[in-house]
Amino acid sequence: MKKIASNNCFGGEQLRFRHNSTVLGCEMTFSVYLPHQIGAAAADAIRLPVVYWLSGLTCTDENFVQKAGVQRAASKLGLIIVTPDTSPRGEGVPDDEEGAYDFGLGAGFYLNATQEPWSKHYHMYDYICQELPAVIEEHFPVDSSRQSIFGHSMGGHGALTIALKNPDRFKSVSAFAPIVSPINCPWGVKAFKNYLGEDTTAWEKYDAVALVKNAKTHIPMLIDQGSADQFLEEQLKPSLLMEACRQTGYPLRYNIRDGYDHSFFFIASFIEEHIRFHADALNR
Amino acid sequence: MKKIASNNCFGGEQLRFRHNSTVLGCEMTFSVYLPHQIGAAAADAIRLPVVYWLSGLTCTDENFVQKAGVQRAASKLGLIIVTPDTSPRGEGVPDDEEGAYDFGLGAGFYLNATQEPWSKHYHMYDYICQELPAVIEEHFPVDSSRQSIFGHSMGGHGALTIALKNPDRFKSVSAFAPIVSPINCPWGVKAFKNYLGEDTTAWEKYDAVALVKNAKTHIPMLIDQGSADQFLEEQLKPSLLMEACRQTGYPLRYNIRDGYDHSFFFIASFIEEHIRFHADALNR
Repeated sequence: MKKIASNNCFGGEQLRFRHNSTVLGCEMTFSVYLPHQIGAAAADAIRLPVVYWLSGLTCTDENFVQKAGVQRAASKLGLIIVTPDTSPRGEGVPDDEEGAYDFGLGAGFYLNATQEPWSKHYHMYDYICQELPAVIEEHFPVDSSRQSIFGHSMGGHGALTIALKNPDRFKSVSAFAPIVSPINCPWGVKAFKNYLGEDTTAWEKYDAVALVKNAKTHIPMLIDQGSADQFLEEQLKPSLLMEACRQTGYPLRYNIRDGYDHSFFFIASFIEEHIRFHADALNR
Repeated sequence: MKKIASNNCFGGEQLRFRHNSTVLGCEMTFSVYLPHQIGAAAADAIRLPVVYWLSGLTCTDENFVQKAGVQRAASKLGLIIVTPDTSPRGEGVPDDEEGAYDFGLGAGFYLNATQEPWSKHYHMYDYICQELPAVIEEHFPVDSSRQSIFGHSMGGHGALTIALKNPDRFKSVSAFAPIVSPINCPWGVKAFKNYLGEDTTAWEKYDAVALVKNAKTHIPMLIDQGSADQFLEEQLKPSLLMEACRQTGYPLRYNIRDGYDHSFFFIASFIEEHIRFHADALNR
């Protein structure tokens, strides 16, 4: 693992690393925010809770790190923030033939692809759930018993599905403008058909609405959605998740934000509320 | 004037416009943050203080708007924030022949060029001091008796020199890692030689250290400087300004920030303190 950037930020350190990913078969970049509590304490005497952030289509690890203002709240509340990339990258990793923004590079959908040519590299589910956390635990003073996850849009889908499939690992999950049911939207159908094949029964393993319906263990869930989001009706469809949560008694806190769109200006406006939500669950 | 973007942000609106600049002889883009106080009040019943932000080398209006997190504090304290571009742009506007990052496009240095071929378009001083404020006052509910200015690096130089030359107009000035004496650093010498010619007496009109020495009217001045800034020794040289302020009794509040560099992570970490500094001066 190689450190490629380091910037002081809100009393802590915003760090960036490259490492060789075995499950993805390529080099990957990720970012870690270490709040000031780390430096202030004896080197290995303190372990802090960690929150994983998953970004949306076209993003790398950098968009959230530069635009969301998360470091301010994370510093105040003493959380480590880990921000991975959104897909495998590099020479040999296949991309959409026409370079579409919503499939291939930058659009890994946080799943394990089963179809050629994607199945060789596109294992973002295993990367986020297993390989990256092992790297984080080896190199940073995280308290593995206190983990949460959140994300935006495609990354909201990733956070919700990964948390729903691993409720014993995460204390809480939240999302900004998530794709709640990829089975039921054009972005998801395109990606799942290519990555997972035509058999739609395989798709339900990566669909938050389907997973909520079968969830045995419930963890606190928070969703913020802008009312002026250009993708609300066609792609995001939060009502599908609200209805599934209502039917099953899943504890969802849902905020509709009047006039907000799909941008980082929306995320920045409410990031502190999400950090406080996770800090509450993690410090309980 | 044409609105080209609008995003809800921290209860207010982050707006972006294009307009034809007469003094620059080209189309220009600028951004305006309107805090929630505007929407909440009757349309023309309220006028808010305004703070101008000047960005550094290579930036447009967007870097600060997307990365500094200024909207949070501006919303809380009820300030309008105006963010112009850093130079004239577009077809016909000359650039450095080799496309250098520190001269020409993106590097207007907030002065009025007197030398060919720059003197036709490069009048950023007049644009920031006269044309843009007139546009802002015409279209937005600003209280013109309450204006302040701040900036970063080359924009810190711009903020300091413009405030020092117009102390009756600005209630306060602040800067992150400013170029305090372009006469005495490679960035400044290169730019001033090209824009202003070989006669260095013309340079002093745009040198904060020279201007402080002759300042009759003092306004509150705040500077934050990272100790790990890669440009500190060769380009920024804050000690020159500190010494000039000490000699003349100019009220400078100077913070050295241990381990911080020249990046937006540094700006974001202390932006709220700068906004509070200006709000104090503007609401007095």
